[in-house]
Amino acid sequence: MATFSVAKVYFVVFFTTEVFATYVRVQRPGPDDCEPVVVAHRGSSGYVTEHTLGAYALAVTQGADYVEPDLVMTKDGHLIARHENQLEKSTDIAHRPEFADRYRSMSVLGFNITLGWFSEDFTLAEIKTLRTIEPMPLIRPGNTRMDGSMEVPTFQEIIDLVKGLEYSQNRTIGIYPELKSGAYFRSIGLPMEPAVVEIFHRNGYIGSQAPVYIQSFEANSLRILKKITDLRLLQLIGRVSAQENARMITPGGLKDIATYAHAVGPHKNHIIPRDFRNRLGRPTSLVIDAHDAGLKVHPYTFRAENAYLPVEFRSKDPADSALGNLDGELEAYLATGIDGLFIDQPDYLVRLKSRFCN
Amino acid sequence: MATFSVAKVYFVVFFTTEVFATYVRVQRPGPDDCEPVVVAHRGSSGYVTEHTLGAYALAVTQGADYVEPDLVMTKDGHLIARHENQLEKSTDIAHRPEFADRYRSMSVLGFNITLGWFSEDFTLAEIKTLRTIEPMPLIRPGNTRMDGSMEVPTFQEIIDLVKGLEYSQNRTIGIYPELKSGAYFRSIGLPMEPAVVEIFHRNGYIGSQAPVYIQSFEANSLRILKKITDLRLLQLIGRVSAQENARMITPGGLKDIATYAHAVGPHKNHIIPRDFRNRLGRPTSLVIDAHDAGLKVHPYTFRAENAYLPVEFRSKDPADSALGNLDGELEAYLATGIDGLFIDQPDYLVRLKSRFCN
Repeated sequence: MATFSVAKVYFVVFFTTEVFATYVRVQRPGPDDCEPVVVAHRGSSGYVTEHTLGAYALAVTQGADYVEPDLVMTKDGHLIARHENQLEKSTDIAHRPEFADRYRSMSVLGFNITLGWFSEDFTLAEIKTLRTIEPMPLIRPGNTRMDGSMEVPTFQEIIDLVKGLEYSQNRTIGIYPELKSGAYFRSIGLPMEPAVVEIFHRNGYIGSQAPVYIQSFEANSLRILKKITDLRLLQLIGRVSAQENARMITPGGLKDIATYAHAVGPHKNHIIPRDFRNRLGRPTSLVIDAHDAGLKVHPYTFRAENAYLPVEFRSKDPADSALGNLDGELEAYLATGIDGLFIDQPDYLVRLKSRFCN
Repeated sequence: MATFSVAKVYFVVFFTTEVFATYVRVQRPGPDDCEPVVVAHRGSSGYVTEHTLGAYALAVTQGADYVEPDLVMTKDGHLIARHENQLEKSTDIAHRPEFADRYRSMSVLGFNITLGWFSEDFTLAEIKTLRTIEPMPLIRPGNTRMDGSMEVPTFQEIIDLVKGLEYSQNRTIGIYPELKSGAYFRSIGLPMEPAVVEIFHRNGYIGSQAPVYIQSFEANSLRILKKITDLRLLQLIGRVSAQENARMITPGGLKDIATYAHAVGPHKNHIIPRDFRNRLGRPTSLVIDAHDAGLKVHPYTFRAENAYLPVEFRSKDPADSALGNLDGELEAYLATGIDGLFIDQPDYLVRLKSRFCN
């Protein structure tokens, strides 16, 4: 039971937050104060099951600038944090007999037929009965120890967590959501773009100075967002195999992106391609071209496990799950002039930054 | 509920201060509302490096009622969270050339001569340059992935974290510090008892209704605390080998403890001894005797790894680090009527409690 004194402290905290909001905004360090910004990809997902409040909280206490939730929609229109709408990849739904009859096939916009359980078939109340599991158990066996221990968080719960941690950390913490499958969710009558803008605006995140980026691989989603909010937008760019991505990384493509977005999030191979031996090659002109177009550049995804590292930075232990020399890869990328990056072990970049940021 | 407005909470608080204080006191769930209380031992130390803000934050997001920091003192009188004053067990100090000359021998009150680096030889500013490591790497290899990533937190930082998370979790979260080596720190002019009381009182934790327990193995420390605070106290009781502990667990010993403490924290073997095969035996009368003396009973320490489990609850995988059937051990202990327990994987008990607590 809360005591009077605890409640009183709370009163002071809330009071301060509201009345001196401007003061705090001016004085308190923000997530963009020292680049490259550290975007904790799915939380500190290298250490705690991704897309859980625990993973986001750990990321903040480790010093990340932004927490990054991927978002999908529930049947009743709530934004929840999952990497995809297919729930069995990261929850225990496959072991819930009460939901067995919701297993079905799904096709995204007429192709990519998949079997599974999908977020849009479940209410938030139903989602809240699920428990999370580690989606990459072979790469991250340490995380499987937490299987079954945490809920799927709503976007609002993540915002609440960030606001609470801003108090204890005495700094402004950014939020960096990705809309997953925007076109698909629009096609089934669950548009994500107005939902994410509404929740940000309602929570006081307004304008291009707010500590927010909204990201998507889909230019159409971003164009819709551009019409209804001034929050900063980031265009994600996939691997070069698709023609659309190849066009996006040209100087002309980047100028086009700059008409609706503040930043680009290219796959890291667009910035430093790998050679035939899977070693880092020579940087491309992408960072310079993007900067010329007025765009920030935040590549994805940096991970400490061997499986994701260029050969020259892998550890002697040949296991995919072994931790290699992520610092080496990060230093190569920082030399290209990038403005931030998505990372599963944000502490590595926090530590590197501590050499030149206060 | 995802649609609750943070901005609106600020607004309400701003204009209805006293009403809000009452509302919080009455409405918000507290750590003692549903027993047995879940004390997150050193944080969620089964999953994240113990005694770090990340470990405490994860514990709270997993639903723990209390977070449990062990406390020792710095040279300049700050309380920091470490299991012992010997710093090389849980930090990277052994690899810091700048501190090499502080390596020394130490004797606690004239015996137990040890070699190492000790918290009382370092200022807080120096401690803050250290980074934490997992002290049980063979049992918790998954935690070693975070070695070097986090700071040693101060007690004030832990209180701030808890207050921030109380906001996002909308519940009152308890704090359950243990004073380590109270007599020793008094003997070198760094008394912990007034320091911990001062910091609790200054932060609004006052009286026996506050969501706090202060614990110690040393009755003298608790008797000193009893004179200067009404916060609840818990007498820890070590294994039976020592005569003093054998006396403490008798009905007479418990009545004596009840003159200065609200609760006892016995080693779990005092409640259910293990037989010669290392299996659980028959419960003793300790819980009943303690309740008769008016004391709550919070045994320590429950851990999911094989190394710590009774034989019948170990997993088929014979590794010490393998996760066994902690639920089985917990159920045996819950049947004895205990009021709470210390646990390294708080999610297990949270999950069991969800069957009968809201």
